[in-house]
This record gives sequence, C-alpha cells and structure tokens, in this order.
Amino acid sequence: MTETPAPLSAEEVARLDAWWRAANYLSVGQIYLLGNPLLREPLLPEHVKPRLLGHWGTTPGLNLLYAHLNRVIQAHDLSTIYIAGPGHGGPGLVASTWLEGSYSEVYPNIGRDEDGIRKLFRQFSFPGGIPSHVAPETPGSIHEGGELGYALAHAYGAALDNPDLLVACVIGDGEAETGPLAASWHSNKFLNPARDGAVLPILHLNGYKIANPTVLSRITHDELDALMRGYGHTPFFVETDDLETVHQELAGTLDAIVADIARIQDDARNGSTERPRWPMLVLRTPKGWTGPNEATPASHQVPLSGLAGHEERVEQLEAWMRSYRPEELFDDQGRPLPEVVALAPAGERRMGANPHANGGLLLHDLELPDFRDYAVEVDSPGYSSSEATRVLGGWLRDVAVANDTSFRIFGPDETVSNRLGAVVEATDRAWMAEIKDADEHMAPDGRVMEVLSEHLCQGWLEGYLLTGRHGLFNSYEAFIHIVDSMFNQHAKWLKTTRHIPWRRPVASLNYLLSSHVWRQDHNGFSHQDPGFIDHVVNKKSEVIRVYLPPDANCLLSVADHCLRSRHYVNVIVAGKQPALDYLTMDEAVAHCTRGIGIWDWASSDGGGEPDVVLACAGDIPTLETVAAAALLREHLPELKVRVINVVDLMRLQDESEHPHGLSHGLFDALFTTDKPVIFAYHGYPWLIHRLTYRRTNHMNLHVRGYKEEGTTTTPFDMVMLNDMDRFHLVIDVIDRVPGLGQRAALLRQQMVDERLRARAYTREHGDDPAELRDWVWTTENP
Amino acid sequence: MTETPAPLSAEEVARLDAWWRAANYLSVGQIYLLGNPLLREPLLPEHVKPRLLGHWGTTPGLNLLYAHLNRVIQAHDLSTIYIAGPGHGGPGLVASTWLEGSYSEVYPNIGRDEDGIRKLFRQFSFPGGIPSHVAPETPGSIHEGGELGYALAHAYGAALDNPDLLVACVIGDGEAETGPLAASWHSNKFLNPARDGAVLPILHLNGYKIANPTVLSRITHDELDALMRGYGHTPFFVETDDLETVHQELAGTLDAIVADIARIQDDARNGSTERPRWPMLVLRTPKGWTGPNEATPASHQVPLSGLAGHEERVEQLEAWMRSYRPEELFDDQGRPLPEVVALAPAGERRMGANPHANGGLLLHDLELPDFRDYAVEVDSPGYSSSEATRVLGGWLRDVAVANDTSFRIFGPDETVSNRLGAVVEATDRAWMAEIKDADEHMAPDGRVMEVLSEHLCQGWLEGYLLTGRHGLFNSYEAFIHIVDSMFNQHAKWLKTTRHIPWRRPVASLNYLLSSHVWRQDHNGFSHQDPGFIDHVVNKKSEVIRVYLPPDANCLLSVADHCLRSRHYVNVIVAGKQPALDYLTMDEAVAHCTRGIGIWDWASSDGGGEPDVVLACAGDIPTLETVAAAALLREHLPELKVRVINVVDLMRLQDESEHPHGLSHGLFDALFTTDKPVIFAYHGYPWLIHRLTYRRTNHMNLHVRGYKEEGTTTTPFDMVMLNDMDRFHLVIDVIDRVPGLGQRAALLRQQMVDERLRARAYTREHGDDPAELRDWVWTTENP
Repeated sequence: MTETPAPLSAEEVARLDAWWRAANYLSVGQIYLLGNPLLREPLLPEHVKPRLLGHWGTTPGLNLLYAHLNRVIQAHDLSTIYIAGPGHGGPGLVASTWLEGSYSEVYPNIGRDEDGIRKLFRQFSFPGGIPSHVAPETPGSIHEGGELGYALAHAYGAALDNPDLLVACVIGDGEAETGPLAASWHSNKFLNPARDGAVLPILHLNGYKIANPTVLSRITHDELDALMRGYGHTPFFVETDDLETVHQELAGTLDAIVADIARIQDDARNGSTERPRWPMLVLRTPKGWTGPNEATPASHQVPLSGLAGHEERVEQLEAWMRSYRPEELFDDQGRPLPEVVALAPAGERRMGANPHANGGLLLHDLELPDFRDYAVEVDSPGYSSSEATRVLGGWLRDVAVANDTSFRIFGPDETVSNRLGAVVEATDRAWMAEIKDADEHMAPDGRVMEVLSEHLCQGWLEGYLLTGRHGLFNSYEAFIHIVDSMFNQHAKWLKTTRHIPWRRPVASLNYLLSSHVWRQDHNGFSHQDPGFIDHVVNKKSEVIRVYLPPDANCLLSVADHCLRSRHYVNVIVAGKQPALDYLTMDEAVAHCTRGIGIWDWASSDGGGEPDVVLACAGDIPTLETVAAAALLREHLPELKVRVINVVDLMRLQDESEHPHGLSHGLFDALFTTDKPVIFAYHGYPWLIHRLTYRRTNHMNLHVRGYKEEGTTTTPFDMVMLNDMDRFHLVIDVIDRVPGLGQRAALLRQQMVDERLRARAYTREHGDDPAELRDWVWTTENP
Repeated sequence: MTETPAPLSAEEVARLDAWWRAANYLSVGQIYLLGNPLLREPLLPEHVKPRLLGHWGTTPGLNLLYAHLNRVIQAHDLSTIYIAGPGHGGPGLVASTWLEGSYSEVYPNIGRDEDGIRKLFRQFSFPGGIPSHVAPETPGSIHEGGELGYALAHAYGAALDNPDLLVACVIGDGEAETGPLAASWHSNKFLNPARDGAVLPILHLNGYKIANPTVLSRITHDELDALMRGYGHTPFFVETDDLETVHQELAGTLDAIVADIARIQDDARNGSTERPRWPMLVLRTPKGWTGPNEATPASHQVPLSGLAGHEERVEQLEAWMRSYRPEELFDDQGRPLPEVVALAPAGERRMGANPHANGGLLLHDLELPDFRDYAVEVDSPGYSSSEATRVLGGWLRDVAVANDTSFRIFGPDETVSNRLGAVVEATDRAWMAEIKDADEHMAPDGRVMEVLSEHLCQGWLEGYLLTGRHGLFNSYEAFIHIVDSMFNQHAKWLKTTRHIPWRRPVASLNYLLSSHVWRQDHNGFSHQDPGFIDHVVNKKSEVIRVYLPPDANCLLSVADHCLRSRHYVNVIVAGKQPALDYLTMDEAVAHCTRGIGIWDWASSDGGGEPDVVLACAGDIPTLETVAAAALLREHLPELKVRVINVVDLMRLQDESEHPHGLSHGLFDALFTTDKPVIFAYHGYPWLIHRLTYRRTNHMNLHVRGYKEEGTTTTPFDMVMLNDMDRFHLVIDVIDRVPGLGQRAALLRQQMVDERLRARAYTREHGDDPAELRDWVWTTENP
C-alpha cells in the first residue's frame, strides 16, 4: 500500500464525489430509463426500457477515474486522453463527456438539460441510438473495446511522438488475461521519455469478468507487485471499498504519479538515457460499486433485470438511482450544477475534446520524396531484375527521415528480413532497454518499431494513426492472420467514422506483406497462407483496398498512393526476392493508376480479339503468366493471346460492389464475353471467382493459385505443386481453346515432360533448374 | 543465481558432452551437407547444399537441454515430452531423436549408420525432404513452432489429466515477446498438481531474435526474477557461457527442479490445496553457442553462407564441424558409439517415442450418452421453441461427467453466457487461485477451462487433443477470429499427419460458436463477424467441416457426430436465444445425416417442380425463410415454393472439391437447373457463391446474408438492415419469378410497408413488433 496523505480539502472531496455521483446516475439512467430521467415523479414500469442492455459492473470505476483525472488535469494543466479498456463501460464515458459539455458540442441535439438527459438515456443501446461501448460515436475515444486486449497498445501508439500528452489507460482485470494485453506491458521498453509522451496504465481490479473471478485479482499482493515490477513499472496501489477515504487516497496517489512522470520526463529531456520505471496504478474497488449486487459477478451487466411485473425491482432501481441524490446534482432545468461541472477542465483540456482523440484534426500530409526518383531502370520488359521491397526501402528511408515526428514503420522483427533495411540504417529501431556494443541501429529515438508481437505492432500503429499520424506495418504474409480480429475492428471503426461528421479522416492503415506464400524459402507448409486478402475483402468496400504490384516500380507507385490516402486499410503484397522488372516508371504509374491493364508487349493478339486471355495478379503469377505467354508465342505463334495484369484487385469486382470496380462493359472489353480466361492469382483461387461471379464471362474463368500444397522446397516446385507454373498454364490454355490441332497436342506433351524434368531436377539437386532460376525470355522479346 | 553443487561424475559430464557434441554435429550437417557426412575426406564445395536453409542459432541450446533431460529422465524414471518453442530448431530435435533411435524406428530408411546420416542430412530442408521446423514429421513433436507464441499453452494442454507426465517446454526469448506466450505463464492457475501432470517452462535466453535483441534478455536480472515470481513461478537460473561448468550447473539445477516438482505433487496428492509456485528454468547461453558468430544475431539462421566460390568458408565449416570431434562419436559404420547413446532412456521413455506425443496411440472413444435422450419434443414444426445451446448443455454435462479424465470444455469466460451452464454446475471450472465464498463452481478439479484468452483456450485444447484426449471450444462467434492463425496451423498439422503413417488420428477440434452475428444483443457493430467460416474453408477439404444446425435437435445430432469424429476441425454455429424447433429427433438425425434436404412441410411444390427455391443455412436464416414461405403460401398460394435447409455447409461444394460435396446430379435435383434460388445464409453471402460457382443453376442464385450492416438494435432490425428478413425474401421472390401478376405486385408493396412498420416500431419501442418477437406461423401449419 502506498503511503498517501490527505491532500484534498473538504470542498475538493465534495466536488469529486458530486461528479462521481452525477456520472454514476447518468450511467444507470442510460442503461434503464426511457422516461422520467430526473425522477421528478415516482419511477413506474413504463419509464423503464423493455430490453435492458449494458454493463454496469465496470462503470463506477471508470467514472471515479474520470473524475480524478479531471482534477489532476486542472491541477497540473495536463493534456490527457482517456482509454477505457473495458469498452462496455460506454455509459460512463458518455456520462462524463456529457457532464463536461464536450458531448453536447458534437451532438447539439443532446443538450445539457432535462430534455437532453432524456434523449441521452433513450439513445443508449436503443435502435437508432448508440452502442454500449466506448464506440467511435463517443467523444474522446480512440478505443472502442468490445474485443478485449488492445487498450494498452493503443495507449502507447497514441503517446509516441506526442511529448506533451498523457495517455491514461484503464485496463480491466478481465482484459489483463488476454495475450495481447499481457505483452503490452513491455511497451515501456519502446517509449522514449525525451520525445514521446507518457502512458499511465491503470489496472482496475474489480475481481470478476462475466462469470468468473479474474486471475490478477486472485493472486497475492506480492505476486502482483512483482509482476508489475517485472514488467518494468513502479506500481502504486489504491485498494479500497471505503467511500469515505477513496477520494483522498486516489488523489494523493495520482499526484504522486504525476510528479513521478514529470521527474522521468525532466530527467530524460535533460539528457538521461536510463530506462525509467514508469509509474502505474493498481486500483482495486468493488465491481459495480455503489450499485446492487456490488462486488459480485451479478453486477457485471444489468444488476436488476426482468423488471416487468416485478414492482419491487422497479422500487430497487429507483432507490439505487436516488442514492446518488440527483436533486443535488441538477437544477430545475436538468442542467448540471456549476459546482458539479467545475471539476471539468476547460476547452481542449477536456478529455472528450482533446484533439488527439480525433486525430484527423491534427493530421498533416506526409512530405513524400518523389518516388519516381527511386525507380529502377527498365530497358525492356522482363530482362533485368530487382528486389521490389529493397527498392521500396530506399524510398521509405527518405519518407521516414523527412517525417521524423509523424511517420513510423512497425514490424515483428522482420523489417530487415523483408529487405527494408535501409530504413533502419537511416533512422534506427526504437529501443529503451539495454544496448550492447554489438547491437546495430538500436536507439531510443528509432523510427522503426520492432517487437516480436504482431499484436503490439498493429495496436501501436492503430493508436498512432488514430491520433493523427502515419505509418506502415510490414510483416511476413503468413503471420498477418495473427491480427485478423484487430484488423476487423479497425476496419469497422473506419467504416463507422466515415459517417460521423465531427470525426475527421485519419491516415490509412497500410500493410506491406512480404516473404509471401511463394517465396518463403526457409519455411514450410506451416508458414503458407495468402488468405489475409480473403479476410480483408469481407469488410465494407468503402474502406478496403488490395494491391498486388507485379514489380519494383509498380510497388513504388502503389506505396506512394497508399501513403497519401486517407481512412482506408491498404493491403500491399510484394515479394522481396529478385524478380523481373516489367515496366518503366512512367508505365508503372499509368498501369497502377488504371489498376488493371492489357500488357501488349506480352500479348500476341495484335490488339484484336484474342483466342484466350491470360490474366495474372501478384509478382510470381505474373512471372509464370508472362513465361507461359512466351512459350505459346514460340510454339503456337498463330494463337492470339491477351495478357492482362491486375494490380488493384478490387477492379475485378462489380462497380456496384466496390468503388474501384470495373463496369461490366469495361470488364467484358478486357476479359471478353466468351473466350477462355486462365487467371494466375497470388492467393486462394476461389477469391477470384467470388469477386467475378457476376461477370458475363465468369463461366469461362479458370483460376490457378495457392491450394495448400507444398512444403519446404524450391520456388519453382512450389508453383508446380499448386499447378500455377508456366507449363501448367500452357496446358490449361491447350485444354480450353478448341481446335488447336496436333501441334498443340505435341506442345502439351512437351509441357508435361518439362514439369517432370523440373521436378526430378529439383529433387536431385535441391534447386530449380538453372534456366528456370534465371529465366528471362525463351524467345526474342517482341 | 541458484546455488548448485557439482552433482555429476566426470564420466557423466563426458557422456552429456558427447551427446551434445553429437547432436550439434548432426544439426550442422543437416543444414549444410549433401555428402561426406562424417568428414571421412576433406570437405569440398560439392559436399555442400546449393541452397542453405535452416536456423542454427537456437539449436545448440535445444540440444543441450535434450541431453540433460535424457539424464534426468533416466535418473528419476520420468515420462517426459519435449516441446520446442523455437520450432526452427528442427535439426536439433531430428538429431536427438536419431541419436536415441526413435527416428529410425519410424523412418527405417534413415538408418543409424553412415548411409542413414547421409540421408538424414540430405532430406533436411530439401525438396521431397522434411521442413526446418519441429514439424509433425519429427517423432516426439506435438508442436511445430513456425508461428511463435503457443508452446507453453500446448504444454499445459498436454499436462492436463496426465498426472505422471512431465512436459518440458522450451520458450525462446523471441517467442516470449508474443502476446499468447505472455499470457500463457498464468496457466499455472489452472493446473491441478493432484490430478494433472507437471509443466517445466524453460525460458531460453540467447539474446537475439532474427535481427534484434530480445526484451527479456535486456531487462535486469531483478526484473526478470520479479516477472517470473509475479507469474507465480519459482525461477531457477543457469546463466553461463562456460563450456567447462555448464553441465554441472545445469544438472544440479534440473535435479533441484525435479525434486521441487515431486514435492509439489506429493503435497497435492496428500491433500494440500495450496497453489504451488512451480519451478521454472531461465537458461541464458550464447546464441549459436559453439558455432561461428556465436552470441550475435548473425548466428540466427545460417552462420556461414555463400560458400560457393569461397573456399575459406568451406574450410571454416569443416573446422566448425570437426570441433565436435565426430571421430569420437561415431564408429566406422557411422553408428553412434554406445557411450554416446547410453544417455538415452529406453523404449517409450525416449522423448521421441513417448506415446503422449503421438496422442492417437492413447486415444479412446468417448463414452457418449445417447443424445436422443436429450431431445426436445416437437409436435409440429415451428410451434415450440428452445434455446439450442442450453439443450446441448444438458448432454455436454453428461459427456463431461462420463469422461472425467479425457474430455474438457474450453471457453473464454463465455460458457455460461453461451448457455452451457449445466456443464459448470456438474463439473466446476478449473481454478487453483484463491476461491472466495461468493464464487460458484470453481474448483481445482473443474472440467471447464475458462480464461479470458481465446489463445489460451485454443492452445490448451490443441495440446490436450494432440496428446490423445477430447474437447470442445465454445466462443462468441465474433471473437473466434482471434485464433485464426492458430486454427491455420492446427488444420495444417492435421492435413500433414493424415499422410504420416506412424501418426495415429486424434480427436477432432470442435468449435461451438454461439452469441452469433444475428443475436448478440448486448453488443454492436464491433462484435459482428461471421467470417470464421470463410477462413476455415480455405483449408484442405479433407480436414474441415462446417455445420449450421437449424434447431436444438439438429444441434444435438451434429454435436454427437462431431465428438465421435477424428482428425477434423468441426465448426458448429448455433444460437443461444429461444428459437423455433422444427424437427423431431428422428427427423433431425435423418436431416443431419443427409446434411441437406427439402423440407416438405414448409414447401408448397407438392414434391413436384417448384417455381422458386428458398434455401437457408443457419438458425436465423431458417426462421426467416420458413416465415417467408408461410407468407407466400398465404398470399400467393398458387406459387410452388421449395424450401431447402442446409446443415452441412460443405454439401454445397462439388464432390470433387470436398468429400461431403453433392454430385452435380443431386445438386441439380435439389436446386433445379433453371429456377430462381433465394438463399438466406448465416454469414457473408459471397461464401455461398464461392462454394457453388460450378453449379448449373449458379446464375439464378441470389444470396442474402450478413453484409456488415447494423449495430446495437433489435434482432429483427438486424435481419432487416441486412435484407435477410422474411419480408425482403418475399420481395426477392416476387422480383425474380416471372409472370406473377397483380396480386404479387400488391404483396410486394405490402412487404415494403411491413418493413417500414417494423422499423418504425423498433425505433419507437426499442423492441421487435410483438408478432415478430413471438412469431410462430402466420397461417395454418400445413
């Protein structure tokens, strides 16, 4: 137990208590009441909502903290945002922002009077109203909660490069059991007190989750203390169920914490490079404090339910609400009394009005060096080769240098492996823990955030973006599924906030997926999964974009576009291994701008109607397709082949389904209405069917892609095992174009033989056949 | 630092050292050599593989531990399995199991002689060979690694209900940064020393991950000690780079740890209910110890690479390999010398031959009470209602009671919320932490494993299944995406092991997803996602199954089928809210056995050719479809409607794509070849298109499902917002069946009005219109 004096005057205690009672009253009212919001008359069953939805249990604790944070913000003139890990405490945050006035500023229809309170109550968890979480609709929120685990990672992301910001982050003891949260404590090794802001983790132990006690509430005090110290924190404890003393104790502890943070920041900003043991608060109070079923799991959601036909429960509810003495909190018009709202700071110091929690307000365009200056020279398509991500790395390095307080790169220890190492060399990795002589490019000021946790990378980046900055997450393709559910919630946040006028657009969340399914040589079957794209395209088309640049120049063009964009999730898949260059920079820009196009230089239809269409999306499918087209040109020169490359995957979809979708007319013009289409795709083949099933020529579409075959083997064996190799694509053409005759039959047999030969070579030598490994052109470049 | 005496004789030290050198030699050989495996001649470039793949850095540590575990297994007659979190240390585990003989027993073609060593070396990370991980191909493995984070959860799952088993679990300091691993330490609150086995976590700090130092290697000793104590462990430390003393120190520490585990188990089995502070080991040794670039990140993968054309590197490699003195380890035939292999325990005590690591060997059928006895009475379809999961709960309770050492239920604090509470009431939740008087159904012996971490639930269950037991994971549907990538790896493990003859089939991994997208009343948009099914069906059809039982009796039938099945992942989606009963138990069994069928009682085509097909999959889509059919029967009695219900989703796919797939003939017989099909589906509608795009009548298929609309609102408003409500289905029919005339036009207008009326009612009252809430039949039951 921390020693705490009694720092508050009686008036200050009264003010804190009044705010707390008001917030609790307004929270309970949201959960239960349709009418009679200030209990001007006896409570009747018809004043109560027919469906009771909400979570009371965590709310009084959230409200208590809001009140006390208001006090320290005023006392120390702090810029603070409040992250409520227990997202179901939504009514609490709505109540507090209404009390401080920020709620009515963005929702003028919900005034600060009795009519406003009635609407405030009615809308909560009501059709057409607001969700029960600290949803995007809640002023001051950058964290909805809902799915638990990411509060603390979001808090750290918000604090990066915001030296004057204090992020108060309430972590429920339920959430604390999740993996992502358990890992997030170590974020303090990545926060630089000299140039970043402060995070105050508040572990709120109320003892229960939905139906069970929580782990951290049932270990010993010594264990909890050791755990927090092990995580690198200095824990402060407030553990009480005493309404008389809680305010003094909590205020004294928060003052000590704020002083400790100031000392740490002063030291660092005066040159200390020691890793601080940042303070954190353990607040142990009863679940559902001040309500019925206090301190039991029964207070988790709605402590009094089934009110219809149970008059005594309605009476209990009324008694509960009256225990907050609303008559002392609101005036005749239902306005909160001046002595209640006096606790709130002014203007943007109010946590519901702090612009960091509406990051689009603070967003500035990145200074982007001209990506054309980083282009690789391409004299002729398909002769030279580049490592696409390494080329991108040069540009990203200069993006990072030019935007050294507003752009960061995040990755799970894979940034160099993904060949973006130029960034690290110029800007270092962020690291506050011990640095040894042998370490390279580690520094407190690093711009690259690397930790072996995709959850932390994603959570930090989300927090960074939602507070108005820019970033990129690079990952091995296989492992990005780790954050599937985090992506879900961010995409849903973006969808929802597009329709909230006072929320300003934020920078897009950019994924760069490399070491992809076709070229992850060190790994085997366990690492192969190109299905993140499938997951992404289930979300609303207004917020998701998927790009598969076929070469280095296209990757540069796509990346520049993505970093300029707003309020999307952009998924870019690009290889890191040497791969052919196809397009000059100008051609790449034109191609990526269209998102899809015919490659005349690879086609043999002379611009007329083709006999067959070879389409491709992704770098390896493009290589195999171009090679197949070359084989066909050499061996069946009379066959008219059209080659189409797709960069922007959503071009395939109907324009009514996705804003990037091609019209049916354009789609038909490209893919014909009746010719066979052999489509080589980077990922699971059925995704192409799902995107194109409404298209006229869909019945003639044959897709090759990854079908869960292959393990540790050579790159060419991987495409063979999945029937996407050039030889198989030629076979597909021969099998589907009618009337090709004997030459085609012989070519088909030759292709079968080539596959057997390549397989045998690989099994014998452990490598691809030399002519495949170094494949450029099998015929003259047209 | 733990005080350690010198417990070993010189001979014992020599024996440990010889094993370690042999394992290291064999590991390096796997990474590098194609020929000259025992260096009988000078090493030449042509003896070296052309592509060097593998991870050396973690391997010497894994080998050191294997050697020492061998010693304690022999000394204390332990039954032990070895989980290697750093999965890329595959060569080490292959080497050790080859040394102990278990490898050659399952792979007789890889003998224990020079020819066998040559093959052992060649196959590693070589086309047609074995992956670089501790893959399913590795004897003794239940954990591939690859994606990091789940080693310790798997270890705890393996130890449950295995009182005589010791699970040694090596955790790399890279893996320790992940969220799931960080949460896994708290698993010790769920392990009962009286009836479960022991887990020995070994945190192996070698300082680096791919390119970065690791967090836990760069915090202070005091912090690390506090962290482990905070997690509830008693840490033992071995921190050394001294080849002379490491064996004495590690042996002494392991003896102390084994004694501590024995004391804890004795106490518990003699009645102590105190939560023990289980021992754990921190082993800090140099990365890539004994190799080039020792103790630097450069030793992570292949420390000497690019050997072609660099004679000096080939010489370095030879010197490195000779430093292990192979001539002292192998005889003239290349057989390991008796004094080397003497360290290995005998028979099934060898960690590569312990049957717990090939769980199918130990698997017994569950004793399943007859699910028919739990049926709800159904006099007539669509009159009575049940909560499907609550009905299932009664049966699951009796399954758990009847199989009280081989079946557990896992869930993230949602088992009661998902209305399976009967199980908890009969068997308690497992809990070793403090229990207070108010707690209900918490006990060390509990059969229900609840922690607020889907990662832990999944990891524990996987460990439990892979060691030969049975289980069920229940979760809210929205949150199951948290384990997308864990599912991936388990499905890949199942696919791979189907083709490994010595691996015996294990019980299926069963998911029960409830509180689904259509009925999660407390929550909003952030919780809505039925896309886990989409994710699952990307995996090999031979291992995945998806069921959408429409009512309680069907759920019972499906669940029984799933619990009897082997080596699948079964996904069951079922609601928990009161919902209509349609089928008697006999009908349900017949329907679920077929997996798809025409519901004559809901149809109006008299068994002949229909004008339109209404298909449905999922409980809510079924309700709306049956209601739509009833509306059509009432208002357009001349229209011939066929109603098809789909329980087994994979019946929709082509029989060439999935073993459950319908033939084209059967599909056409059900869905017709030319009539409109209106399909109401539980999840994202395009999944139905993806499954059926090859079907004759696909162009006439119109699918309704969840399209990311709706937030906190009433259940009926949810289906309306996504256009899947009964009224909209009727509109869909009218819009697609030609020649319906004026009555249909009027009915269409009526349906539009009904939707507006329902929406207005909901917005006004916060509830569904009464007749919808209680909807049974709008017309006479036919």
